[in-house]
Amino acid sequence: MQVEFMKELILALDLLDREEAVNIALDTSDFVDRIKVNYPLVLSVGIDVVKELSKINPVIADFKIADIPYISSKIAEIAFKNGASAVIVHGFVGRDTVKAVLNVAKEYSGEVYVVSELSSEGAEEFMIKHSIEIVKLAKELGCHGVIAPATRIDRLIRIREVAEGLKVFCPGIGFQGGSLEAIKYSDGIIVGRAIYLATNPRDEAMKLKKIISDYDVRSNSL
Amino acid sequence: MQVEFMKELILALDLLDREEAVNIALDTSDFVDRIKVNYPLVLSVGIDVVKELSKINPVIADFKIADIPYISSKIAEIAFKNGASAVIVHGFVGRDTVKAVLNVAKEYSGEVYVVSELSSEGAEEFMIKHSIEIVKLAKELGCHGVIAPATRIDRLIRIREVAEGLKVFCPGIGFQGGSLEAIKYSDGIIVGRAIYLATNPRDEAMKLKKIISDYDVRSNSL
Repeated sequence: MQVEFMKELILALDLLDREEAVNIALDTSDFVDRIKVNYPLVLSVGIDVVKELSKINPVIADFKIADIPYISSKIAEIAFKNGASAVIVHGFVGRDTVKAVLNVAKEYSGEVYVVSELSSEGAEEFMIKHSIEIVKLAKELGCHGVIAPATRIDRLIRIREVAEGLKVFCPGIGFQGGSLEAIKYSDGIIVGRAIYLATNPRDEAMKLKKIISDYDVRSNSL
Repeated sequence: MQVEFMKELILALDLLDREEAVNIALDTSDFVDRIKVNYPLVLSVGIDVVKELSKINPVIADFKIADIPYISSKIAEIAFKNGASAVIVHGFVGRDTVKAVLNVAKEYSGEVYVVSELSSEGAEEFMIKHSIEIVKLAKELGCHGVIAPATRIDRLIRIREVAEGLKVFCPGIGFQGGSLEAIKYSDGIIVGRAIYLATNPRDEAMKLKKIISDYDVRSNSL
Protein backbone atom coordinates (compact mmCIF):
# COMPACT_ATOMS: atom_id res chain seq x y z
CA MET A 1 0.00 0.00 0.00
CA GLN A 2 1.26 3.45 -0.91
CA VAL A 3 1.93 5.60 2.16
CA GLU A 4 -0.11 8.79 1.92
CA PHE A 5 1.64 12.02 2.80
CA MET A 6 -0.19 15.31 2.80
CA LYS A 7 0.15 16.59 -0.73
CA GLU A 8 2.25 19.71 -1.09
CA LEU A 9 2.50 22.72 -3.36
CA ILE A 10 6.16 23.53 -4.03
CA LEU A 11 6.98 26.87 -5.57
CA ALA A 12 9.91 26.75 -8.01
CA LEU A 13 11.29 30.24 -7.62
CA ASP A 14 13.29 30.47 -10.84
CA LEU A 15 13.73 34.20 -10.89
CA LEU A 16 16.93 36.21 -11.19
CA ASP A 17 15.99 39.16 -9.02
CA ARG A 18 16.19 38.95 -5.25
CA GLU A 19 13.44 41.38 -4.39
CA GLU A 20 11.04 39.87 -6.88
CA ALA A 21 11.82 36.35 -5.61
CA VAL A 22 11.33 37.28 -1.97
CA ASN A 23 8.15 39.23 -2.72
CA ILE A 24 6.56 36.34 -4.58
CA ALA A 25 7.60 33.95 -1.80
CA LEU A 26 5.94 36.22 0.77
CA ASP A 27 2.88 36.86 -1.36
CA THR A 28 2.18 33.15 -1.93
CA SER A 29 3.42 31.83 1.41
CA ASP A 30 -0.03 30.91 2.82
CA PHE A 31 -0.64 28.44 0.01
CA VAL A 32 2.87 27.16 -0.62
CA ASP A 33 4.40 24.35 1.46
CA ARG A 34 7.98 24.69 0.29
CA ILE A 35 10.10 26.83 -1.96
CA LYS A 36 12.46 25.24 -4.47
CA VAL A 37 15.47 27.32 -5.51
CA ASN A 38 17.82 26.52 -8.33
CA TYR A 39 21.18 27.83 -9.50
CA PRO A 40 19.94 30.72 -11.66
CA LEU A 41 18.57 32.55 -8.60
CA VAL A 42 21.38 31.62 -6.24
CA LEU A 43 24.14 32.46 -8.74
CA SER A 44 22.47 35.76 -9.60
CA VAL A 45 21.83 37.06 -6.11
CA GLY A 46 24.03 35.00 -3.77
CA ILE A 47 23.53 31.89 -1.66
CA ASP A 48 22.26 33.86 1.35
CA VAL A 49 18.92 34.24 -0.40
CA VAL A 50 18.32 30.64 0.73
CA LYS A 51 18.46 31.76 4.36
CA GLU A 52 16.09 34.64 3.67
CA LEU A 53 13.59 32.42 1.86
CA SER A 54 13.84 29.71 4.52
CA LYS A 55 12.27 32.15 6.99
CA ILE A 56 9.19 32.21 4.76
CA ASN A 57 8.91 28.50 3.92
CA PRO A 58 11.25 25.47 3.98
CA VAL A 59 13.67 25.60 1.06
CA ILE A 60 14.68 22.75 -1.24
CA ALA A 61 18.04 23.52 -2.86
CA ASP A 62 17.49 22.12 -6.31
CA PHE A 63 21.16 21.97 -7.20
CA LYS A 64 20.75 18.71 -9.15
CA ILE A 65 24.07 17.67 -7.68
CA ALA A 66 25.86 15.50 -10.24
CA ASP A 67 29.53 15.49 -9.37
CA ILE A 68 32.11 13.24 -7.74
CA PRO A 69 31.43 12.61 -4.02
CA TYR A 70 34.12 15.07 -2.84
CA ILE A 71 32.57 18.02 -4.67
CA SER A 72 28.98 16.88 -4.18
CA SER A 73 29.29 16.81 -0.41
CA LYS A 74 30.77 20.33 -0.48
CA ILE A 75 27.81 21.58 -2.50
CA ALA A 76 25.33 19.91 -0.16
CA GLU A 77 27.09 21.34 2.86
CA ILE A 78 26.86 24.88 1.48
CA ALA A 79 23.14 24.40 0.83
CA PHE A 80 22.35 23.13 4.32
CA LYS A 81 24.64 25.64 6.04
CA ASN A 82 22.70 28.39 4.32
CA GLY A 83 19.34 27.21 5.56
CA ALA A 84 18.11 24.70 2.99
CA SER A 85 16.09 21.87 4.53
CA ALA A 86 16.53 19.58 1.53
CA VAL A 87 18.74 19.14 -1.52
CA ILE A 88 18.17 17.46 -4.87
CA VAL A 89 20.81 15.11 -6.24
CA HIS A 90 21.05 13.14 -9.48
CA GLY A 91 21.04 9.36 -9.09
CA PHE A 92 22.55 8.90 -12.52
CA VAL A 93 26.04 9.66 -11.21
CA GLY A 94 25.89 6.62 -8.93
CA ARG A 95 25.42 5.66 -5.32
CA ASP A 96 28.74 7.04 -4.04
CA THR A 97 27.61 10.59 -4.75
CA VAL A 98 24.12 10.02 -3.29
CA LYS A 99 25.68 8.52 -0.15
CA ALA A 100 28.08 11.43 0.23
CA VAL A 101 25.17 13.88 0.03
CA LEU A 102 23.11 11.83 2.49
CA ASN A 103 25.98 11.87 4.99
CA VAL A 104 26.07 15.64 4.89
CA ALA A 105 22.27 15.85 5.11
CA LYS A 106 22.30 13.76 8.28
CA GLU A 107 24.59 16.26 10.01
CA TYR A 108 22.04 18.98 9.33
CA SER A 109 18.90 16.82 9.78
CA GLY A 110 18.21 17.65 6.14
CA GLU A 111 16.45 15.72 3.44
CA VAL A 112 17.72 14.32 0.15
CA TYR A 113 15.60 13.96 -2.98
CA VAL A 114 16.83 12.06 -6.00
CA VAL A 115 15.95 12.87 -9.62
CA SER A 116 14.52 9.77 -11.26
CA GLU A 117 14.19 11.25 -14.73
CA LEU A 118 13.90 14.88 -15.81
CA SER A 119 10.57 16.22 -17.06
CA SER A 120 12.21 17.35 -20.31
CA GLU A 121 12.23 15.38 -23.57
CA GLY A 122 15.95 14.65 -23.36
CA ALA A 123 15.33 12.37 -20.40
CA GLU A 124 13.93 9.84 -22.86
CA GLU A 125 17.40 9.35 -24.35
CA PHE A 126 19.30 7.92 -21.36
CA MET A 127 17.63 8.65 -18.03
CA ILE A 128 14.39 6.83 -18.72
CA LYS A 129 16.36 3.58 -19.07
CA HIS A 130 17.57 3.80 -15.48
CA SER A 131 14.98 5.77 -13.56
CA ILE A 132 13.44 2.71 -11.92
CA GLU A 133 16.87 1.49 -10.79
CA ILE A 134 17.60 5.00 -9.52
CA VAL A 135 14.38 5.06 -7.49
CA LYS A 136 15.34 1.69 -5.97
CA LEU A 137 18.78 3.06 -5.17
CA ALA A 138 17.21 6.12 -3.48
CA LYS A 139 15.03 3.86 -1.37
CA GLU A 140 17.83 1.48 -0.47
CA LEU A 141 20.12 4.29 0.65
CA GLY A 142 17.46 5.95 2.79
CA CYS A 143 16.74 9.06 0.77
CA HIS A 144 13.58 10.99 1.55
CA GLY A 145 12.00 11.15 -1.84
CA VAL A 146 12.32 11.25 -5.58
CA ILE A 147 11.57 13.77 -8.28
CA ALA A 148 9.47 12.34 -11.11
CA PRO A 149 8.00 13.92 -14.25
CA ALA A 150 4.45 15.26 -14.48
CA THR A 151 5.04 15.23 -18.22
CA ARG A 152 4.96 11.43 -18.44
CA ILE A 153 2.08 10.21 -16.25
CA ASP A 154 2.61 6.53 -17.12
CA ARG A 155 6.22 6.80 -15.94
CA LEU A 156 5.16 8.72 -12.84
CA ILE A 157 2.70 5.98 -11.87
CA ARG A 158 5.40 3.33 -12.23
CA ILE A 159 7.97 5.40 -10.34
CA ARG A 160 5.52 6.00 -7.52
CA GLU A 161 4.87 2.30 -7.18
CA VAL A 162 8.57 1.56 -6.87
CA ALA A 163 9.14 4.55 -4.59
CA GLU A 164 6.62 3.33 -2.00
CA GLY A 165 7.40 4.90 1.36
CA LEU A 166 9.30 7.79 -0.22
CA LYS A 167 7.82 11.13 -1.21
CA VAL A 168 7.36 11.75 -4.91
CA PHE A 169 7.47 15.35 -6.10
CA CYS A 170 6.56 16.32 -9.65
CA PRO A 171 7.78 19.20 -11.78
CA GLY A 172 6.59 19.89 -15.29
CA ILE A 173 3.01 21.03 -14.76
CA GLY A 174 1.92 24.05 -16.75
CA PHE A 175 4.62 25.55 -18.96
CA GLN A 176 6.26 22.20 -19.64
CA GLY A 177 2.95 20.63 -20.63
CA GLY A 178 2.52 18.30 -17.67
CA SER A 179 -0.99 17.47 -16.49
CA LEU A 180 -2.58 18.34 -13.15
CA GLU A 181 -3.42 14.64 -13.00
CA ALA A 182 0.12 14.31 -11.62
CA ILE A 183 -1.26 15.49 -8.26
CA LYS A 184 -3.09 12.20 -7.94
CA TYR A 185 0.11 10.18 -8.29
CA SER A 186 2.47 12.33 -6.28
CA ASP A 187 3.00 13.86 -2.85
CA GLY A 188 3.54 17.29 -4.21
CA ILE A 189 3.71 19.27 -7.40
CA ILE A 190 6.48 21.71 -8.23
CA VAL A 191 5.16 24.76 -10.02
CA GLY A 192 7.23 27.68 -11.19
CA ARG A 193 6.30 29.83 -14.13
CA ALA A 194 2.56 29.12 -13.84
CA ILE A 195 2.71 30.89 -10.46
CA TYR A 196 5.44 33.50 -10.69
CA LEU A 197 4.54 34.66 -14.20
CA ALA A 198 0.84 34.88 -13.35
CA THR A 199 -0.77 38.31 -13.14
CA ASN A 200 -1.65 37.45 -9.58
CA PRO A 201 0.75 34.82 -8.18
CA ARG A 202 -1.10 34.63 -4.86
CA ASP A 203 -4.41 33.79 -6.56
CA GLU A 204 -2.72 31.22 -8.74
CA ALA A 205 -1.04 29.57 -5.72
CA MET A 206 -4.35 29.61 -3.84
CA LYS A 207 -6.13 28.00 -6.78
CA LEU A 208 -3.50 25.27 -7.07
CA LYS A 209 -3.45 24.62 -3.33
CA LYS A 210 -7.22 24.21 -3.41
CA ILE A 211 -6.97 21.63 -6.22
CA ILE A 212 -4.25 19.78 -4.31
CA SER A 213 -6.26 19.75 -1.08
CA ASP A 214 -9.27 18.36 -2.93
CA TYR A 215 -7.11 15.46 -4.08
CA ASP A 216 -5.95 14.97 -0.48
CA VAL A 217 -9.54 14.73 0.72
CA ARG A 218 -10.30 12.24 -2.02
CA SER A 219 -7.23 10.11 -1.22
CA ASN A 220 -8.11 9.97 2.45
CA SER A 221 -11.71 9.00 1.83
CA LEU A 222 -10.76 6.03 -0.32
CA MET B 1 43.97 10.14 -37.26
CA GLN B 2 43.58 11.88 -33.90
CA VAL B 3 43.90 15.65 -34.17
CA GLU B 4 46.67 16.83 -31.86
CA PHE B 5 45.98 19.90 -29.78
CA MET B 6 48.62 21.39 -27.53
CA LYS B 7 48.18 19.60 -24.25
CA GLU B 8 46.96 21.76 -21.38
CA LEU B 9 47.25 21.94 -17.63
CA ILE B 10 43.90 22.89 -16.12
CA LEU B 11 43.81 23.96 -12.50
CA ALA B 12 40.68 22.82 -10.65
CA LEU B 13 40.35 25.58 -8.10
CA ASP B 14 38.10 23.83 -5.60
CA LEU B 15 38.65 26.15 -2.68
CA LEU B 16 36.11 27.99 -0.58
CA ASP B 17 38.07 31.15 0.15
CA ARG B 18 38.28 33.90 -2.42
CA GLU B 19 41.69 35.28 -1.49
CA GLU B 20 43.26 31.85 -1.33
CA ALA B 21 41.75 30.91 -4.71
CA VAL B 22 42.91 34.09 -6.40
CA ASN B 23 46.39 33.84 -4.86
CA ILE B 24 46.88 30.27 -6.05
CA ALA B 25 45.60 31.22 -9.51
CA LEU B 26 48.11 34.07 -9.66
CA ASP B 27 50.94 32.03 -8.20
CA THR B 28 50.55 29.20 -10.72
CA SER B 29 49.43 31.26 -13.71
CA ASP B 30 52.64 30.82 -15.75
CA PHE B 31 52.21 27.06 -15.87
CA VAL B 32 48.44 26.76 -15.99
CA ASP B 33 46.48 27.05 -19.25
CA ARG B 34 43.00 27.35 -17.80
CA ILE B 35 41.27 27.49 -14.46
CA LYS B 36 38.28 25.28 -13.75
CA VAL B 37 35.84 26.55 -11.14
CA ASN B 38 33.02 24.58 -9.62
CA TYR B 39 30.01 25.38 -7.44
CA PRO B 40 31.70 25.14 -4.03
CA LEU B 41 33.88 28.17 -4.79
CA VAL B 42 31.24 30.15 -6.66
CA LEU B 43 28.52 29.51 -4.06
CA SER B 44 30.88 30.39 -1.23
CA VAL B 45 32.30 33.64 -2.59
CA GLY B 46 29.93 34.76 -5.37
CA ILE B 47 29.83 34.37 -9.14
CA ASP B 48 31.97 37.47 -9.74
CA VAL B 49 35.05 35.45 -8.76
CA VAL B 50 34.79 34.01 -12.28
CA LYS B 51 35.41 37.45 -13.75
CA GLU B 52 38.36 38.03 -11.44
CA LEU B 53 39.93 34.66 -12.27
CA SER B 54 39.30 35.11 -15.99
CA LYS B 55 41.75 38.01 -15.94
CA ILE B 56 44.44 35.54 -14.85
CA ASN B 57 43.61 32.60 -17.14
CA PRO B 58 40.57 31.47 -19.16
CA VAL B 59 37.92 29.99 -16.89
CA ILE B 60 35.90 26.83 -17.42
CA ALA B 61 32.69 26.97 -15.37
CA ASP B 62 32.40 23.37 -14.27
CA PHE B 63 28.75 23.60 -13.36
CA LYS B 64 28.03 20.06 -14.60
CA ILE B 65 24.76 21.43 -15.90
CA ALA B 66 22.14 18.68 -15.68
CA ASP B 67 18.75 20.30 -15.76
CA ILE B 68 15.88 20.89 -18.17
CA PRO B 69 16.81 23.14 -21.14
CA TYR B 70 15.06 26.22 -19.72
CA ILE B 71 17.11 26.19 -16.51
CA SER B 72 20.30 24.91 -18.13
CA SER B 73 20.45 27.80 -20.57
CA LYS B 74 19.98 30.25 -17.71
CA ILE B 75 22.88 28.69 -15.81
CA ALA B 76 25.11 28.79 -18.92
CA GLU B 77 24.19 32.40 -19.54
CA ILE B 78 25.18 33.43 -16.02
CA ALA B 79 28.53 31.64 -16.43
CA PHE B 80 29.37 33.30 -19.75
CA LYS B 81 28.08 36.72 -18.67
CA ASN B 82 30.44 36.55 -15.73
CA GLY B 83 33.50 35.88 -17.84
CA ALA B 84 33.68 32.10 -18.25
CA SER B 85 35.04 31.02 -21.63
CA ALA B 86 33.63 27.51 -21.36
CA VAL B 87 31.02 25.53 -19.46
CA ILE B 88 30.69 21.85 -18.63
CA VAL B 89 27.36 20.12 -19.20
CA HIS B 90 26.20 16.55 -18.53
CA GLY B 91 25.23 14.55 -21.61
CA PHE B 92 23.10 12.03 -19.75
CA VAL B 93 20.25 14.52 -19.44
CA GLY B 94 19.87 14.37 -23.22
CA ARG B 95 20.50 16.40 -26.32
CA ASP B 96 17.87 19.08 -25.68
CA THR B 97 19.83 20.37 -22.70
CA VAL B 98 23.19 20.18 -24.49
CA LYS B 99 21.71 22.06 -27.46
CA ALA B 100 20.25 24.74 -25.21
CA VAL B 101 23.65 25.28 -23.59
CA LEU B 102 25.38 25.35 -26.99
CA ASN B 103 22.98 28.02 -28.20
CA VAL B 104 23.89 30.24 -25.28
CA ALA B 105 27.61 29.51 -25.75
CA LYS B 106 27.40 30.66 -29.37
CA GLU B 107 26.11 34.07 -28.31
CA TYR B 108 29.20 34.50 -26.14
CA SER B 109 31.68 32.69 -28.47
CA GLY B 110 32.10 30.29 -25.59
CA GLU B 111 32.92 26.61 -25.52
CA VAL B 112 30.90 23.64 -24.29
CA TYR B 113 32.43 20.48 -22.82
CA VAL B 114 30.36 17.39 -22.14
CA VAL B 115 30.96 14.93 -19.30
CA SER B 116 31.29 11.45 -20.77
CA GLU B 117 31.56 9.62 -17.45
CA LEU B 118 32.68 10.90 -14.06
CA SER B 119 36.07 9.85 -12.66
CA SER B 120 34.39 8.52 -9.50
CA GLU B 121 33.43 4.90 -8.90
CA GLY B 122 29.70 5.62 -9.09
CA ALA B 123 30.06 6.32 -12.81
CA GLU B 124 30.39 2.58 -13.33
CA GLU B 125 26.77 2.10 -12.30
CA PHE B 126 24.97 4.00 -15.05
CA MET B 127 27.17 6.51 -16.86
CA ILE B 128 29.68 4.01 -18.21
CA LYS B 129 26.90 2.34 -20.18
CA HIS B 130 26.23 5.50 -22.16
CA SER B 131 29.48 7.43 -22.25
CA ILE B 132 30.34 6.42 -25.80
CA GLU B 133 26.89 7.47 -27.02
CA ILE B 134 27.28 10.71 -25.09
CA VAL B 135 30.62 11.43 -26.77
CA LYS B 136 29.02 10.81 -30.16
CA LEU B 137 26.20 13.15 -29.21
CA ALA B 138 28.73 15.85 -28.20
CA LYS B 139 30.47 15.48 -31.54
CA GLU B 140 27.28 15.48 -33.55
CA LEU B 141 25.99 18.64 -31.87
CA GLY B 142 29.26 20.54 -32.33
CA CYS B 143 30.50 20.69 -28.77
CA HIS B 144 34.14 21.57 -28.22
CA GLY B 145 35.27 18.68 -26.13
CA VAL B 146 34.52 16.02 -23.59
CA ILE B 147 35.57 15.28 -20.04
CA ALA B 148 36.83 11.74 -19.56
CA PRO B 149 38.26 9.92 -16.53
CA ALA B 150 41.98 9.59 -15.83
CA THR B 151 40.94 6.90 -13.36
CA ARG B 152 39.96 4.43 -16.11
CA ILE B 153 42.65 4.59 -18.78
CA ASP B 154 41.05 1.88 -20.94
CA ARG B 155 37.84 3.91 -21.05
CA LEU B 156 39.75 7.10 -21.73
CA ILE B 157 41.48 5.53 -24.74
CA ARG B 158 38.15 4.40 -26.16
CA ILE B 159 36.48 7.75 -25.48
CA ARG B 160 39.35 9.57 -27.16
CA GLU B 161 39.02 7.44 -30.28
CA VAL B 162 35.32 8.22 -30.56
CA ALA B 163 35.86 11.90 -29.69
CA GLU B 164 38.26 12.44 -32.59
CA GLY B 165 38.38 16.11 -33.47
CA LEU B 166 37.15 17.18 -30.04
CA LYS B 167 39.33 18.02 -27.07
CA VAL B 168 39.48 15.49 -24.27
CA PHE B 169 40.19 16.79 -20.78
CA CYS B 170 40.86 14.45 -17.87
CA PRO B 171 40.21 14.89 -14.18
CA GLY B 172 41.09 12.32 -11.55
CA ILE B 173 44.89 12.45 -11.48
CA GLY B 174 46.48 12.48 -8.04
CA PHE B 175 44.03 12.42 -5.15
CA GLN B 176 41.47 10.35 -7.04
CA GLY B 177 44.09 7.78 -8.00
CA GLY B 178 44.26 8.48 -11.75
CA SER B 179 47.53 7.93 -13.56
CA LEU B 180 49.71 10.55 -15.26
CA GLU B 181 49.52 8.24 -18.27
CA ALA B 182 46.22 10.02 -18.95
CA ILE B 183 48.28 12.87 -20.39
CA LYS B 184 49.18 10.67 -23.33
CA TYR B 185 45.54 10.05 -24.20
CA SER B 186 44.13 13.49 -23.57
CA ASP B 187 44.46 17.12 -24.57
CA GLY B 188 44.70 18.30 -21.04
CA ILE B 189 44.66 17.14 -17.47
CA ILE B 190 42.57 18.73 -14.75
CA VAL B 191 44.43 18.84 -11.45
CA GLY B 192 43.08 20.28 -8.23
CA ARG B 193 44.17 19.09 -4.83
CA ALA B 194 47.61 17.88 -6.02
CA ILE B 195 48.36 21.53 -6.86
CA TYR B 196 46.43 23.65 -4.38
CA LEU B 197 47.13 21.46 -1.37
CA ALA B 198 50.87 21.25 -2.23
CA THR B 199 53.35 23.03 0.04
CA ASN B 200 54.40 24.97 -3.04
CA PRO B 201 51.57 25.09 -5.60
CA ARG B 202 53.72 27.00 -8.11
CA ASP B 203 56.44 24.32 -8.10
CA GLU B 204 53.85 21.58 -8.41
CA ALA B 205 52.19 23.32 -11.37
CA MET B 206 55.61 23.86 -12.99
CA LYS B 207 56.51 20.20 -12.55
CA LEU B 208 53.19 19.06 -14.06
CA LYS B 209 53.44 21.50 -16.96
CA LYS B 210 56.94 20.18 -17.72
CA ILE B 211 55.66 16.58 -17.81
CA ILE B 212 52.80 17.62 -20.07
CA SER B 213 55.13 19.52 -22.42
CA ASP B 214 57.40 16.48 -22.68
CA TYR B 215 54.40 14.45 -23.84
CA ASP B 216 53.64 17.17 -26.38
CA VAL B 217 57.17 16.95 -27.80
CA ARG B 218 56.89 13.19 -28.01
CA SER B 219 53.48 13.34 -29.72
CA ASN B 220 54.76 15.75 -32.32
CA SER B 221 57.88 13.73 -33.10
CA LEU B 222 55.91 10.55 -33.81
